[in-house]
Amino acid sequence: MPNSEPASLLELFNSIATQGELVRSLKAGSASKDEIDSAVKMLVSLKMSYKAATGEDYKADCPPGNPAPTSNHGPDATEAEEDFVDPWTVQTSSAKGIDYDKLIVRFGSSKIDKELINRIERATGQRPHHFLRRGIFFSHRDMNQVLDAYENKKPFYLYTGRGPSSEAMHVGHLIPFIFTKWLQDVFNVPLVIQMTDDEKYLWKDLTLDQAYSYAVENAKDIIACGFDINKTFIFSDLDYMGMSSGFYKNVVKIQKHVTFNQVKGIFGFTDSDCIGKISFPAIQAAPSFSNSFPQIFRDRTDIQCLIPCAIDQDPYFRMTRDVAPRIGYPKPALLHSTFFPALQGAQTKMSASDPNSSIFLTDTAKQIKTKVNKHAFSGGRDTIEEHRQFGGNCDVDVSFMYLTFFLEDDDKLEQIRKDYTSGAMLTGELKKALIEVLQPLIAEHQARRKEVTDEIVKEFMTPRKLSFDFQ
Amino acid sequence: MPNSEPASLLELFNSIATQGELVRSLKAGSASKDEIDSAVKMLVSLKMSYKAATGEDYKADCPPGNPAPTSNHGPDATEAEEDFVDPWTVQTSSAKGIDYDKLIVRFGSSKIDKELINRIERATGQRPHHFLRRGIFFSHRDMNQVLDAYENKKPFYLYTGRGPSSEAMHVGHLIPFIFTKWLQDVFNVPLVIQMTDDEKYLWKDLTLDQAYSYAVENAKDIIACGFDINKTFIFSDLDYMGMSSGFYKNVVKIQKHVTFNQVKGIFGFTDSDCIGKISFPAIQAAPSFSNSFPQIFRDRTDIQCLIPCAIDQDPYFRMTRDVAPRIGYPKPALLHSTFFPALQGAQTKMSASDPNSSIFLTDTAKQIKTKVNKHAFSGGRDTIEEHRQFGGNCDVDVSFMYLTFFLEDDDKLEQIRKDYTSGAMLTGELKKALIEVLQPLIAEHQARRKEVTDEIVKEFMTPRKLSFDFQ
Repeated sequence: MPNSEPASLLELFNSIATQGELVRSLKAGSASKDEIDSAVKMLVSLKMSYKAATGEDYKADCPPGNPAPTSNHGPDATEAEEDFVDPWTVQTSSAKGIDYDKLIVRFGSSKIDKELINRIERATGQRPHHFLRRGIFFSHRDMNQVLDAYENKKPFYLYTGRGPSSEAMHVGHLIPFIFTKWLQDVFNVPLVIQMTDDEKYLWKDLTLDQAYSYAVENAKDIIACGFDINKTFIFSDLDYMGMSSGFYKNVVKIQKHVTFNQVKGIFGFTDSDCIGKISFPAIQAAPSFSNSFPQIFRDRTDIQCLIPCAIDQDPYFRMTRDVAPRIGYPKPALLHSTFFPALQGAQTKMSASDPNSSIFLTDTAKQIKTKVNKHAFSGGRDTIEEHRQFGGNCDVDVSFMYLTFFLEDDDKLEQIRKDYTSGAMLTGELKKALIEVLQPLIAEHQARRKEVTDEIVKEFMTPRKLSFDFQ
Repeated sequence: MPNSEPASLLELFNSIATQGELVRSLKAGSASKDEIDSAVKMLVSLKMSYKAATGEDYKADCPPGNPAPTSNHGPDATEAEEDFVDPWTVQTSSAKGIDYDKLIVRFGSSKIDKELINRIERATGQRPHHFLRRGIFFSHRDMNQVLDAYENKKPFYLYTGRGPSSEAMHVGHLIPFIFTKWLQDVFNVPLVIQMTDDEKYLWKDLTLDQAYSYAVENAKDIIACGFDINKTFIFSDLDYMGMSSGFYKNVVKIQKHVTFNQVKGIFGFTDSDCIGKISFPAIQAAPSFSNSFPQIFRDRTDIQCLIPCAIDQDPYFRMTRDVAPRIGYPKPALLHSTFFPALQGAQTKMSASDPNSSIFLTDTAKQIKTKVNKHAFSGGRDTIEEHRQFGGNCDVDVSFMYLTFFLEDDDKLEQIRKDYTSGAMLTGELKKALIEVLQPLIAEHQARRKEVTDEIVKEFMTPRKLSFDFQ
């Protein structure tokens, strides 16, 4: 949801020019190696943001909007140019959605390839989750390091979160939590879940009490995913900041090591943004460091953190990874997921404020049926005859995309793909298959959520020791 | 201590131009009255900062450094032009120190006049403190409102603070605390004292542990001023942020209502400043609101706050007063003191890092004697003969200035002023008089400080109910 306007490309372009000058002057002067390295990293990060936003490398003599006369745009380059991804805006003009392979290159992360998936299987002795098998979690940073630690019996912990912008959560919001629960189960590690109610208060027209109550309501849906109460700590920022001897200290440490220039480059903040937004990235960064949770990890600072999240959150953690070594902490590792498409198509992220943009966790069986039949963008042909003859297009069909997320049986999914592509399966039949997967899934979620009492939420949200012993 | 460079005048000039355009466009568009009012207030505040920095009104056609050809600078205007006051920098070229009457006009505060002093005397039934009688606390905001409340038996509370930049405190640092203790005694009200160890961590080359240990050491000197343990709460930000259910919530509220443009205009931050500095003003603002201390005031938000502080802290509270009505809280009232001069003269604030710039609370009787004799800037004549004939100048004599702070007896002080001005008293005799006041004062402070045990500090710094009942 674009509550914050990204910096204009021209501003970003100018920031790069300024940062380049800084690097040159540091190199010319008597600056320390650390200072120069840090400035160079910042420059690289700004250039990455520029490339992510424009699809083109930064060229000093070529401001945005004035394509270099020498550059030769193929149709593919034009398409990629329009993908834009930051924590508030995800845009693409392609019905297939964002080009994730290109995003990996632009963000400088690594692809989750077959080899890594095999290694996870070997390390855990468990069949990899279908989100891994199907490329829904498609990108990572330092996952091999986490596996090294795990294989050497060194501890790590999981960190994920949610911005509670309303009471309403849709199925897409569950993706990181479903996967995180699987990770917690197969690795048997502690998990912290941050509810950024302070962020939502800062970005939206909400009171503190509203933002906090959304955090509690959303926590119920998260708990209903089946997290182990003895291994999971869920916290509201508004609450936990005033209850922890470690959290604020890490926030201030991070805030000392990030400049306005940096957050301007990474998040597109402007001079008109409130100082709460400007300093917020440090609050999302802090749970990446284990001593933010002294009740769990005591004063240990060396426990590696692994963050499963959607790729749009990566800018926060690029910043975090840049700061970590400068304050003596390990860099968090990451697992990135693709975006969950809106019913209307993969061009945009869903909006919690449009009830028809997705399946909500409160929808009845009837609502699910109506929404899928009425709103799910179809890759089918205009007439049955054409469909039978030429077949449907799974790459743009939202019902099929949803099935890749929620139909666990690989063989069934492959059969549906074949049948729909060949034309043997009609759009109505494909939608029926999705409805039959979603209806019990949502009903079971609702049943589990009903069992989440206020007392259970309170216990999940109480700072306490988990069932791990950190010396 | 100028750890932060003030914005260049040109930047400030440009901010005013931008803000002016914003106001015009809001007025031309469909903006609400509140939005326009808020933008106008910001514009006025920026213009005030500009005038405080340049000594001249902002003129759209006249950027700084290009004095308007029509303006007629008398010698007085030139002198005033060079006074600069913000929380990190206090500069004047006059040996008499800052021109405080002009500062009142520039900052838009009110003079503490005879009438107000009389009213304080009537309300409390106590002789006004010599800091009031002698104009050391010389400026205020809304003190009459505090007295209205007091006379109507409505509660208020005191808030002051200190930035613990080192273990060493000098006598000048005691001024706000000596006065605050008097206020607490005569009004019988709760007091909160903020130790901004987070600020010092952000601005200086300190670790968190160092900054916190300075906060605790400085708290001992503050406690030694004689505060009532049952009515006083001292807190380190680094500590209290993680212990209070109210503090962080108010910090976020304030941070939502202050933009980077505003803190840039008020504090001179730049894009290269870290996001910790940029968001810090909200942390100094938050204790102005009573629900930052639920252990004392429960959830009451309506208890007026009175802040005694040196005038250089006013920018923080101008910002606070601007935000207060927008978040539904009363504006804090203020009592402003002049600066305590360095031994070398009134042109600058003292530096805790130069041991000869003032009398430190750890100085021995001998050190006090040597420092005063050797370093205290004298308003005396070059030879005894000239001095006897023409007399000394109390207005620039630092020993005399120190006596106005620490010699309580008005008659004795007046006698010294007369004798030194006439030449009957020599510089050596004046210095002796000061030494005889300072030696027992420091010795008694040291004796009281010795009695401040770690347990006593811990109790002062524990969030707890004070001996007042707020329903």
